[in-house]
Amino acid sequence: MDKTKEKYTTIHYQDYLQLDKLLDAQNMRSALAAEPAHEEMLFIIVHQVYELWFKQIIHELHSVVGLFVDAKVDESNIGISIARLNRVEEIMKLLIKQISVMETMTPLDFLDFRGYLFPASGFQSFQFRVVESLMGLPENQRITYHQQKYSSVFPKEQKDQLAEIYKKGTLHDLIEDWLERMPFLQLGDFNFIEKYREALEQMLKHELDAIRDSEYLTDKEKEKRAEMVGSTDTYFQSILNKETHDQLIAEGKKRFSYKATLAALFINLYRDEPILHLPFQLLTSLIEIDDLFTSWRYRHAQMVLRMLGNKMGTGGSSGHDYLNKTAQKHKMFEDLHNISTLLIPRSALPKLPKDIKRQLSYYFTTNE
Amino acid sequence: MDKTKEKYTTIHYQDYLQLDKLLDAQNMRSALAAEPAHEEMLFIIVHQVYELWFKQIIHELHSVVGLFVDAKVDESNIGISIARLNRVEEIMKLLIKQISVMETMTPLDFLDFRGYLFPASGFQSFQFRVVESLMGLPENQRITYHQQKYSSVFPKEQKDQLAEIYKKGTLHDLIEDWLERMPFLQLGDFNFIEKYREALEQMLKHELDAIRDSEYLTDKEKEKRAEMVGSTDTYFQSILNKETHDQLIAEGKKRFSYKATLAALFINLYRDEPILHLPFQLLTSLIEIDDLFTSWRYRHAQMVLRMLGNKMGTGGSSGHDYLNKTAQKHKMFEDLHNISTLLIPRSALPKLPKDIKRQLSYYFTTNE
Amino acid sequence: MDKTKEKYTTIHYQDYLQLDKLLDAQNMRSALAAEPAHEEMLFIIVHQVYELWFKQIIHELHSVVGLFVDAKVDESNIGISIARLNRVEEIMKLLIKQISVMETMTPLDFLDFRGYLFPASGFQSFQFRVVESLMGLPENQRITYHQQKYSSVFPKEQKDQLAEIYKKGTLHDLIEDWLERMPFLQLGDFNFIEKYREALEQMLKHELDAIRDSEYLTDKEKEKRAEMVGSTDTYFQSILNKETHDQLIAEGKKRFSYKATLAALFINLYRDEPILHLPFQLLTSLIEIDDLFTSWRYRHAQMVLRMLGNKMGTGGSSGHDYLNKTAQKHKMFEDLHNISTLLIPRSALPKLPKDIKRQLSYYFTTNE
Amino acid sequence: MDKTKEKYTTIHYQDYLQLDKLLDAQNMRSALAAEPAHEEMLFIIVHQVYELWFKQIIHELHSVVGLFVDAKVDESNIGISIARLNRVEEIMKLLIKQISVMETMTPLDFLDFRGYLFPASGFQSFQFRVVESLMGLPENQRITYHQQKYSSVFPKEQKDQLAEIYKKGTLHDLIEDWLERMPFLQLGDFNFIEKYREALEQMLKHELDAIRDSEYLTDKEKEKRAEMVGSTDTYFQSILNKETHDQLIAEGKKRFSYKATLAALFINLYRDEPILHLPFQLLTSLIEIDDLFTSWRYRHAQMVLRMLGNKMGTGGSSGHDYLNKTAQKHKMFEDLHNISTLLIPRSALPKLPKDIKRQLSYYFTTNE
Repeated sequence: MDKTKEKYTTIHYQDYLQLDKLLDAQNMRSALAAEPAHEEMLFIIVHQVYELWFKQIIHELHSVVGLFVDAKVDESNIGISIARLNRVEEIMKLLIKQISVMETMTPLDFLDFRGYLFPASGFQSFQFRVVESLMGLPENQRITYHQQKYSSVFPKEQKDQLAEIYKKGTLHDLIEDWLERMPFLQLGDFNFIEKYREALEQMLKHELDAIRDSEYLTDKEKEKRAEMVGSTDTYFQSILNKETHDQLIAEGKKRFSYKATLAALFINLYRDEPILHLPFQLLTSLIEIDDLFTSWRYRHAQMVLRMLGNKMGTGGSSGHDYLNKTAQKHKMFEDLHNISTLLIPRSALPKLPKDIKRQLSYYFTTNE
Repeated sequence: MDKTKEKYTTIHYQDYLQLDKLLDAQNMRSALAAEPAHEEMLFIIVHQVYELWFKQIIHELHSVVGLFVDAKVDESNIGISIARLNRVEEIMKLLIKQISVMETMTPLDFLDFRGYLFPASGFQSFQFRVVESLMGLPENQRITYHQQKYSSVFPKEQKDQLAEIYKKGTLHDLIEDWLERMPFLQLGDFNFIEKYREALEQMLKHELDAIRDSEYLTDKEKEKRAEMVGSTDTYFQSILNKETHDQLIAEGKKRFSYKATLAALFINLYRDEPILHLPFQLLTSLIEIDDLFTSWRYRHAQMVLRMLGNKMGTGGSSGHDYLNKTAQKHKMFEDLHNISTLLIPRSALPKLPKDIKRQLSYYFTTNE
Repeated sequence: MDKTKEKYTTIHYQDYLQLDKLLDAQNMRSALAAEPAHEEMLFIIVHQVYELWFKQIIHELHSVVGLFVDAKVDESNIGISIARLNRVEEIMKLLIKQISVMETMTPLDFLDFRGYLFPASGFQSFQFRVVESLMGLPENQRITYHQQKYSSVFPKEQKDQLAEIYKKGTLHDLIEDWLERMPFLQLGDFNFIEKYREALEQMLKHELDAIRDSEYLTDKEKEKRAEMVGSTDTYFQSILNKETHDQLIAEGKKRFSYKATLAALFINLYRDEPILHLPFQLLTSLIEIDDLFTSWRYRHAQMVLRMLGNKMGTGGSSGHDYLNKTAQKHKMFEDLHNISTLLIPRSALPKLPKDIKRQLSYYFTTNE
Repeated sequence: MDKTKEKYTTIHYQDYLQLDKLLDAQNMRSALAAEPAHEEMLFIIVHQVYELWFKQIIHELHSVVGLFVDAKVDESNIGISIARLNRVEEIMKLLIKQISVMETMTPLDFLDFRGYLFPASGFQSFQFRVVESLMGLPENQRITYHQQKYSSVFPKEQKDQLAEIYKKGTLHDLIEDWLERMPFLQLGDFNFIEKYREALEQMLKHELDAIRDSEYLTDKEKEKRAEMVGSTDTYFQSILNKETHDQLIAEGKKRFSYKATLAALFINLYRDEPILHLPFQLLTSLIEIDDLFTSWRYRHAQMVLRMLGNKMGTGGSSGHDYLNKTAQKHKMFEDLHNISTLLIPRSALPKLPKDIKRQLSYYFTTNE
């Protein structure tokens, strides 16, 4: 059969979507036990829908990781990566919204079949762990549960798959590599970090002046605020000083290398330059996804609290506490979030030398 | 094995959700043809998720139909019905939102694998037809496609199942029966419809006075508006006159019987009486679901337009036109919507006689 | 002028909405300073929209508080209260969604005009404090900011208004009173709490059996889980024992009285009884609002982190930290949330005696 | 006072947002008439919030129009335009969601104060007309109301402002100009439209083959489908033939010039080329905004139907009908939507010659 023919082999909706299989995979255990609980169907379907979307998210992340895995990522792939990460964002928004459907089940409804689930638990979702791993959630920062590693609930084969993801390179690590390859930080006479340092000092001085001259603040408040500006100052030291930055990495407080961090800052500050639009969109999308995961964990924790109160979950975890902790700690691109602290107003921004500015632009040649 | 034991047979997440089956049901036909189109996965997953939610909606509608199917529905079931219909609302909101995920696929992405789908089409979703039928979409008002009946794409067994739903009683018909059983429309001296007629005349007279006395309107505008009030007047005739109403039913312009319509109006007008709260919530929920289906059809039509423009869909329908028409015509509880036209302000509402009012209340007896 | 006439004095859209005033209230300070920052308009409008919605929320809460303030709330008002609280829910959902609009402003955009805002801060929103107070956020649980009371930023008149709300009775306190007036907990031979205690013991025994008999768990895991069931057991003591409960109130760990808590538990357990539908909806709505406030605080904290990083806000607070803490601590109906922990499956629920059951029902008398 | 000083003049939240004005602009007319209707507050606030958001949308559209108004738009402004249009999208999503808040008001609630609004109507919102005009809604396609022009309700000064917008150039017209300036359609040997024609013929032939060879379709169905492909074919003639296109413009069926349409098609087909990413995002954003306006009009029509049924609105229009018609007809970028019909699969896409491809790329020069 030649390819064109094969392409057009006809098919029906029912077969294409394998609905026979799909719609035959809801087995209410409460019904098996002859005490059918109406809401168990919702519970099953909600979780199956989650798993289908996780499969889709993995499909997208795999493809983006694939685009970045070559040391010299083709710049034309940045646009494709952004589109696929934007899709992950839309899916995550849906997953958050989906919690509202689950919440139409009351705690009492849930208790009607909760006994039958034991000890199954969302904790055992392999695909969710794959998603976290592909994104690059650091293994050593994961909240443990009963002092056991998150992967302990999986058989060896799946454990190996998770390890393999970290070995091959997570999205976090590949983005770091890509940022490190970014040029522009030092070109001819232009030393980005020196210019930035000068602008920064100017800005902090302005803030202190404003506090001193305020008509609304008492002396005590002025003192307190001046102190806070001072502590911001301390914060800036890490970007001005490679040693300080490396020290924070060693302490596990930062993950991106100094060079990658500088590049991310540069992209954020000069995002209005044409050539930096897409890189800026890419970084923004990663932050957005990170935030959406956090929101989802948080809403999930809220829902578990409402459903179970402080009872332990079927998986044995005190579900609300565990989820709430992951919402606080399981951040994947915290270093990108922290760039915000380092931004300075456009008006204070060091002007780029002409030759760099030209390199950051592109022009259409018109045929008129 | 005794029941208690069985209840607690332990199970794992993976097995409970039958993930082996579920996650093995995505076969990209573009990949089979050795031209893998990245976005085909999204297309499959989106439609599978739709089908899972349709299964859930059917689960809820079946149960509500079951609760109403006995001639004397236990009033304690009204609350349960409302809760389950509210769940259908939440699911429908999610299905509408889900279109945003589909829209992350561009038309060009879609064309990469569209050829492989032929002639599969959402038109062939059996579950969706079950949902429409359970709700009570009248068969004779369905938009035909290529002059063929919607059920023509299904094998005999499925056709029979659809017919069976109509025979057993749709939600629409069961709600009509329940409304007809509602008491209160004529009790002792209180003749609801007579009192309503008087209030109505008073209200229309007020509106005409306001138009006549307005300082802003020109004479021509006044004339036009007075005409419109007049046409509203005509509209009211159907509720004031059983013959007119029955005529409209004969013409296919109304579906609910005169008696059921009166009861629905009564519930809407006197919804603040304690005993009518839940009946009012029930009717509101049905309207809400109807609206959500319309919104979904409409957004779906919009998405198809964006994806395909005026090209015909894989199922051969000019998808956008078909869906747009169903959004305009496939209303399930239009008679409930039309109650709004018949409402009059609370201040004009006929006072209920004391004995009826008492019957519409319930009291806690306090133990203090 | 007689009343009917006055009612129909005509008016135009522009005047009705006072658009001259409304649309003249956006003064970009960056423009005044001759350095117009495009995004300052968004910043102003977003906050003005918040304040308009706060006014609406206050309008609703005031009316609900008014309905409950009479010791003998007319049961017909429960339905109205639910409708208005549901409206607050919808508004809160919108306020959460609105953060997405704010997030279209990048940190760099914000820095362009941030200097002009100093020291204005959302911390100074009086209406938001009114909302929190009307709901009944306990004053002594509020997160302080720089060791100062939240009301310290307001002039005396506004401080007095806030104090007055607590004095007159917050929604929290009025709901507590209403719960305490609930009958049914002890009627004739039926002693609710004794029946509940028996059911509870049965349920916990089942859970321990399931753990012991599981084929999946190791001995160590079994031990750990049995321990957790034990600690749940401890948790139940407070509902079984008034002294324990009162002790927790004294320690500030609970707020609702023992009697009110029992009534809330009863409503949750027997919510399928017709007369308890609306009370159950009322309690559910309060929990939902509480959750929505928490979500809003949390998303707000996330947004501030993205906008400012760890810089202090214009109001001088380290905005993210403050907001994050309020999301964790500023719960208004935590006692209602905790009811979930106390629920037991319907199958274990003590049967109600016939005479109580009859009091919990209401019947239509049919006119046929 | 020097500029730096002025910049830091301190201000309070209350004054910055002009809350005294803003929160004093809600005058319930039902209260003036001594028949306070609780829900009138919601009605006022909802509409005021709409007007605030309209002001914001106008702020964004004005700025984007300003960026495009110079014949040679700086390419660096494309990114800024996209960001601001994305903001309009987020606001529109919020306005659609806001309808859910309005829907918490029941028709009966509305009737309590509807009499006081007469003849005020959303039809009289000047800002909304400014938004439509800035977007470029063609004046001659506007749905008239009572045979009167939409602008007839405004005083001369406002009428002039609307006319001025069309004279200065709407977003639609400026985008058309920008598309016309796009190079690449004919460069050296590469004649885009000729290559496209060949690819098109190949694609249509494939589709006809698939229909002919299908095992599922009956002969009658095959005939019908072949016919539909034929009609698609006709559709393509307008892009292949300038005269046909110009004829459609003359008939009012198309608005974009032939040249602009070709450029939009080119951008859509070759959007994966780096330099076309942002132009593609720009066009996508315009389609998205158009769709969101349509959704909003549609949901608005639905809400009016629910609130008033077929009664006329306070402005005298049969509100639902008018809004429903605008949802069907008031499209602003329909030509961009129609591009979808003209797309062909990537696999059929004519390969770009090397020199053009190079012009569509940009490269970082690395400093390593």
